[in-house]
Amino acid sequence: MDQAGKPRRRSGGRAGNAARRGQAAIDQMPWKPPVNIDRPTEPLPTEGVQAIHDGAMRILEEIGIEFLNDEAIALFRQAGCTVNGSNVRMGREWVMEMLGHAPAQFDITPRNPDRKITIGGKHILFGNVSSPPNYFDLEIGKKVSGSRAQCADLLRLTQYFNCIHFAGGYPVEPVDVHPSVRHLDVVYDKMVLTDKVPHAYSLGKERVEDVMEMIKIAGGLTEEEFTAAPHMYTNINSTSPLKHDVPMIDGCLRCIRRGQAVIVTPFTLAGAMAPVTMAGAVSLSIAEALSAIALFQYVRPGAPCVIGTFTSNVDMKSGAPAFGTPEYMRATQMTGQMARFYGLPMRASGSCAANVPDGQAMWETSNALWSAVQSGTNIVYHAAGWLEGGLVASPEKFIMDCEVLQMIQRYMDPAITATGPDDIAIDAIKEVGPNGHFFGITHTQDRYEAAFYQPFLSDWRNFEAWEAAGSVWTAERAHRIFKEIIGSFEEPPMDDGIKEALGDFVARRKAEGGAPTDF
Amino acid sequence: MDQAGKPRRRSGGRAGNAARRGQAAIDQMPWKPPVNIDRPTEPLPTEGVQAIHDGAMRILEEIGIEFLNDEAIALFRQAGCTVNGSNVRMGREWVMEMLGHAPAQFDITPRNPDRKITIGGKHILFGNVSSPPNYFDLEIGKKVSGSRAQCADLLRLTQYFNCIHFAGGYPVEPVDVHPSVRHLDVVYDKMVLTDKVPHAYSLGKERVEDVMEMIKIAGGLTEEEFTAAPHMYTNINSTSPLKHDVPMIDGCLRCIRRGQAVIVTPFTLAGAMAPVTMAGAVSLSIAEALSAIALFQYVRPGAPCVIGTFTSNVDMKSGAPAFGTPEYMRATQMTGQMARFYGLPMRASGSCAANVPDGQAMWETSNALWSAVQSGTNIVYHAAGWLEGGLVASPEKFIMDCEVLQMIQRYMDPAITATGPDDIAIDAIKEVGPNGHFFGITHTQDRYEAAFYQPFLSDWRNFEAWEAAGSVWTAERAHRIFKEIIGSFEEPPMDDGIKEALGDFVARRKAEGGAPTDF
Repeated sequence: MDQAGKPRRRSGGRAGNAARRGQAAIDQMPWKPPVNIDRPTEPLPTEGVQAIHDGAMRILEEIGIEFLNDEAIALFRQAGCTVNGSNVRMGREWVMEMLGHAPAQFDITPRNPDRKITIGGKHILFGNVSSPPNYFDLEIGKKVSGSRAQCADLLRLTQYFNCIHFAGGYPVEPVDVHPSVRHLDVVYDKMVLTDKVPHAYSLGKERVEDVMEMIKIAGGLTEEEFTAAPHMYTNINSTSPLKHDVPMIDGCLRCIRRGQAVIVTPFTLAGAMAPVTMAGAVSLSIAEALSAIALFQYVRPGAPCVIGTFTSNVDMKSGAPAFGTPEYMRATQMTGQMARFYGLPMRASGSCAANVPDGQAMWETSNALWSAVQSGTNIVYHAAGWLEGGLVASPEKFIMDCEVLQMIQRYMDPAITATGPDDIAIDAIKEVGPNGHFFGITHTQDRYEAAFYQPFLSDWRNFEAWEAAGSVWTAERAHRIFKEIIGSFEEPPMDDGIKEALGDFVARRKAEGGAPTDF
Repeated sequence: MDQAGKPRRRSGGRAGNAARRGQAAIDQMPWKPPVNIDRPTEPLPTEGVQAIHDGAMRILEEIGIEFLNDEAIALFRQAGCTVNGSNVRMGREWVMEMLGHAPAQFDITPRNPDRKITIGGKHILFGNVSSPPNYFDLEIGKKVSGSRAQCADLLRLTQYFNCIHFAGGYPVEPVDVHPSVRHLDVVYDKMVLTDKVPHAYSLGKERVEDVMEMIKIAGGLTEEEFTAAPHMYTNINSTSPLKHDVPMIDGCLRCIRRGQAVIVTPFTLAGAMAPVTMAGAVSLSIAEALSAIALFQYVRPGAPCVIGTFTSNVDMKSGAPAFGTPEYMRATQMTGQMARFYGLPMRASGSCAANVPDGQAMWETSNALWSAVQSGTNIVYHAAGWLEGGLVASPEKFIMDCEVLQMIQRYMDPAITATGPDDIAIDAIKEVGPNGHFFGITHTQDRYEAAFYQPFLSDWRNFEAWEAAGSVWTAERAHRIFKEIIGSFEEPPMDDGIKEALGDFVARRKAEGGAPTDF
């Protein structure tokens, strides 16, 4: 494995690789981030939205949020909030005034400007699985700690699929790279293997600053160009209940002061770190998110901020988090209503509790994805590749999820439900009559190639044909496609000088010790 | 296998069976047919609804439907429609006048009155897979022709699961029983093994009349009681494009004249027997369905009728029907809008193209089920057990689908999104503060047992625990539950005299030759 995480040569040698390169592993839909044409599903009546808003405001006014970050404390004090030690209470008028500065929509432009994304409005974007420490694929056959090579392969999938719109986090945490320099190696791979919107973890000054620097280098941007508009984002979690920690807030301040975007995503597990009721968990989540977003607007009015949700419940039998459940779906929809109430873009997630890429994994993920669509969310994190409640990344699951994401993209095509005269097609019905067939007529021939969703993984053959082809179940078919994609992967173009500068930066920072660790 | 299709004794002998009986194989949700509390997803603007209505009316006025049934022809002529041979053209005023008689809602009461179902309004009901000629389970490991024993096992699943609300059709076609008497044997099994709303196929006079008679016997009903209100239903398909055949219309007339319900479900595959556009396929489907429903209202104003949809597309590569696609989802939602426009209850379907109960099967079925929910449909046919485009029934798929159906039932519980003060739970949040945990507090303890969906099949354990328990993927776990359910199945109560009368009826009709066949 070289520094760019290039794959070892696959069978077929140089000639084989050359033959595979340039030949698409699959036929996929083009890059076209969907616009959500459906009216959101809104389970809360107006009074319900008001009740949650009031609940969130009471949390901020009466209980307060612990900000374990001295800079934030000083800022809140300056803003006139009530500060006692690490506890910050803030009035709803101030909060709403701050939120009034937040943009309802903004763009993030990566090093490939054709992969610019718009966050907000009716846009919906899908991202790769982010941060699991473990990896599973059918070849290995078990759960293993993540490695840089596996991370690089998942980055290739992130780049390859047009239905994946940004490269969020590390698709698997490479435990084989020392944490002090892990961000340097993984983000190097990310810069070389992808050209989509990237991300930095807010886990310490060096990790944020180094990554922003690498994104600048990779994009050939001056400091002025970098700060003039968002080119990347960070995502933070609060520490529920009621806390924001040092590095998360620090990272966000660094990002917003340089014009970059932040997503604030509380992780509120009902019955554990949040009330057992969905309204309670959502109110707490809203309060925690808004406390941070209000701070960021105070520091930099107009900072691009997204309110995130990761509200689910704990399985009462085992204490393990459950995902893709009815309660999870409703909490996501409720948060969508609140995001629209506050005029903020929103993030939700794909997710499941299943350990392997089977039927359970797909019904749970389908529940999560469709509730995200119904919520009107703008960002769907972890939309491809997630298993075991976020502890495992799987390339088969990634590819299976992409089939669903493509279907959502197609689902949002208003052409499907057009009702003009040529769509109602009375003349075609007359032409065929009661004894004919529609395939041969001009009306069909003119349209059929674009009329229907074309899968790349689903097997629509009859049982006998499927059986004759080896009776291959879906996860195994996904595995084969994984191999095809990796074997024929073409890196996005990158100027040699830029690649060299990236490498030099990584080398220099490694020599300086990277990000400090105590081990 | 005896006449009732009782299972052979399973391992453990008499004592084992006795021990299993009365001990629930799984913890499942109670019988509680959901009420759909969501606003439907409505992709068509008002003009689109009007365009499809106008298209359907133009089909009826300008093209006409072929009714290959002399009685129907005579009735249409009597009603003043324009009849030429088998072609019937009808004006929209007459059609809409007839539809005005159709009830927006009605009940069907089976032999167990606690299993009465309401069709219409916001009620949503799920039924078993119906009519596949083949069977697959993991033990057999391949696709085989259906048998009476397998049909009986699937009837047991139909009875067992509270989330299955009616027993539609034969869950698999028992090819090992001669077609002349098949209806007698299967409906005998259905009457003995289930007490939910039953169905008759409209495939010839004897099949309809014999089944109605058996339902009367099983329910202990006089003719007056039977005809006073619906106790069963039939479902027919038109023969797209533009035709209704002899037995289907004949069966419906027999049913409605005796006060029973009918569902009219065109099967319009875009690009094959319908236009390649969804609007064209839906318009054709609407026209075919309304032509029959209008006839039935003419014959018996107020006859309980349901408008069904089975609109999908043909895979252009193979010519095979595709299911659970984006187009399928939109066609279902569009038909929901039309059903509400006409004031008719609606039927949709669960479905998939997948050949085995894997990830593809579940994302396709999830797409079908969630679009059915979003359409506001009242009936979901084939909601559990369907594979290979309807050619295969699988008990594993049945059980996997039931997990999804239970989740839909729970999803529709308005308690999840309640926002009263105890739900917002400010006091609980204050009590726990920033350093506590919610599990131990009274607010959680008082609620947690009912707060969250409890799965019976999903494995929520972590990877290590799942691995230690044998690394069992979902379909295999479903298979084990199948065996448990069958092994511990308790037939619903049936009076000995009734059972004897049913048996006598079957014997007599068999001696008379059953339903005539030419082989």
